Amino acid sequence: MAKSGKEPDIGDWRNRIDALDLELVRMLNERARCAIEIGKIKRKRNMPIYDPKREEQIIATALSHNEGPLDGEGVRRLFERIIDESRRIERVTAEKRAKD
Amino acid sequence: MAKSGKEPDIGDWRNRIDALDLELVRMLNERARCAIEIGKIKRKRNMPIYDPKREEQIIATALSHNEGPLDGEGVRRLFERIIDESRRIERVTAEKRAKD
Repeated sequence: MAKSGKEPDIGDWRNRIDALDLELVRMLNERARCAIEIGKIKRKRNMPIYDPKREEQIIATALSHNEGPLDGEGVRRLFERIIDESRRIERVTAEKRAKD
Repeated sequence: MAKSGKEPDIGDWRNRIDALDLELVRMLNERARCAIEIGKIKRKRNMPIYDPKREEQIIATALSHNEGPLDGEGVRRLFERIIDESRRIERVTAEKRAKD
């Protein structure tokens, strides 16, 4: 229950979420840039883009560092989406270079 | 093409991704904590958890700050997942409190 009249309100929490989201957009793009670089190297070496062992390792690392309140299933779903977008951009870039 | 023999290799990019992922887990949990606090306030005030206008605003803000290389559709899919997990944890917490 309320300890004082000065607790943060919904608007305050939303401002904090908005600030986090800007940082998340920035970091997800930085992650995508890394994936693009990996895609270029794989393309040069004729390596496959899809690497299920690496993807499982990414999720295992995320899960092992999860202190909550998100549960493991939530972290897994989030990272499956993040990995999916990285794989997509890695593939698009590799295919573009293949056509050049 | 390679400018020198000292370019970062796949392992270097993966290390950078791993470091980003630990920060992402931390920030996604911080975001979830904010969502939980919002859920508690909404519960006290009998407000609905699902707020489509706010969710559209979150995505619009993310899109307007997206400098790539992720495209708009990728950012939208990522934030739909992030919002979905926030809504889930907001709801679980509100329901738990309702039972207390």
